[in-house]
Amino acid sequence: MKRKIKLIIQYDGTDFSGWQIQNNERSVQGEIEKALEEIHESRIRVTGSGRTDSGVHARGQAAHFETEKDNIPAEKFVPAINSQLPGDILITAAFETHPDFHARYDAVCRHYKYYFMIDAGKDVFNRKFSMTINRIPDIKLLNSYASGICGTHDFTTFTASGDKSKSKERNIYSASFYYENEYMIFSIKGNAFLWKMVRSLSGTMIELEKEKKPAEYFKNILYRKSRKLAGKTAPAAGLFLEKVYYGGIND
Amino acid sequence: MKRKIKLIIQYDGTDFSGWQIQNNERSVQGEIEKALEEIHESRIRVTGSGRTDSGVHARGQAAHFETEKDNIPAEKFVPAINSQLPGDILITAAFETHPDFHARYDAVCRHYKYYFMIDAGKDVFNRKFSMTINRIPDIKLLNSYASGICGTHDFTTFTASGDKSKSKERNIYSASFYYENEYMIFSIKGNAFLWKMVRSLSGTMIELEKEKKPAEYFKNILYRKSRKLAGKTAPAAGLFLEKVYYGGIND
Repeated sequence: MKRKIKLIIQYDGTDFSGWQIQNNERSVQGEIEKALEEIHESRIRVTGSGRTDSGVHARGQAAHFETEKDNIPAEKFVPAINSQLPGDILITAAFETHPDFHARYDAVCRHYKYYFMIDAGKDVFNRKFSMTINRIPDIKLLNSYASGICGTHDFTTFTASGDKSKSKERNIYSASFYYENEYMIFSIKGNAFLWKMVRSLSGTMIELEKEKKPAEYFKNILYRKSRKLAGKTAPAAGLFLEKVYYGGIND
Repeated sequence: MKRKIKLIIQYDGTDFSGWQIQNNERSVQGEIEKALEEIHESRIRVTGSGRTDSGVHARGQAAHFETEKDNIPAEKFVPAINSQLPGDILITAAFETHPDFHARYDAVCRHYKYYFMIDAGKDVFNRKFSMTINRIPDIKLLNSYASGICGTHDFTTFTASGDKSKSKERNIYSASFYYENEYMIFSIKGNAFLWKMVRSLSGTMIELEKEKKPAEYFKNILYRKSRKLAGKTAPAAGLFLEKVYYGGIND
């Protein structure tokens, strides 16, 4: 019987077309499948918890694959795969999981962080990992918007035109802004997210905060379910998929 | 009469062959000269405070150029040049300076920082900006080595075979290790440095610390003036040229 292995994956999204294999572009999934093919000498499919766009990073993407190799302990897949991967992808953990496990369908919570570099002017070192804000933002006001996101809402306002989800309803478990070193971070956890939803939320909130709009104004934008009311989508570079939760002991 | 302009320059050294123009490789100096040529419609030479190697970064490289443009206030060169530069170079300041100013010969002190990422395992985000150390180093022991560097010494032990300096004597004003966020930083100021000297010092000290060698052992290596006694040169990625001092009011 085939074994199922769960992987935790870190990547610098800068030089990828995104997670998913498409056309002949360089994708994270494609690089990992190439590495697994080297080890297995046959094609192995990798299924991620979800896609990330070009330029979006991950500290804890999750994925699974099936293997017929019964002589490799799960944790040994970490160095085995890493030795075949380029420097901008790193497997940080590998676990044996039950045969029915599915990295996408079984995920109960996704945690994203959006990084704002505060009041620093332009900076060549952070341009690929944050969005620069040339002022000290009113973090209390931003948190008054963020608390309005929590709960179950239709997020039509904050998606991209290409989103194919039938229902635009998502459950948000937590959403807040806080400072960490020279960054302000928007941290959000939800069962799932629409296409570009976190970047649209981030870009809209930072725009409204600049205009000193009250929390009710932001809530109204959310409730009106119209993409025209959203602000500019924040750049991919600032977004990190932090962790995917499965509600199990390995989380 | 030609005006002389002093520039302060930040760059992410990852994708450059280094500061200096050589052959047809991508250099920081070359990119700035191209930008100045766009503005002046003629070839303009840029002189830096010194070279940095491929992969070495700068937060405060200094340079000068001469211009016949008398209608541009010095500070307006900042946006003018930046608008012509790629994303991995940034002019952070421009000053009018006296006609005899020379970015290399007038520099009285260079400040470098070497970044060690501590006990973090491999990490895809910091690989271009630090050297990873998979233990908590004995920072007291490291500082006992560093204090032995201060003063005037012949640094033959810590240079590369290609160094062309006649005298290997350099004056070190300060050298110390300290923690900042998830990094340990080796900070060193001196009148000038031999080729690869900071990276050789960094690599050697971290090697000796691992072996728990006493401060006298390190001093003896320095005094013996033999390149064979140095440890491995630390990777270029961890090194930043922080600032160049000219002993003037603009420092």
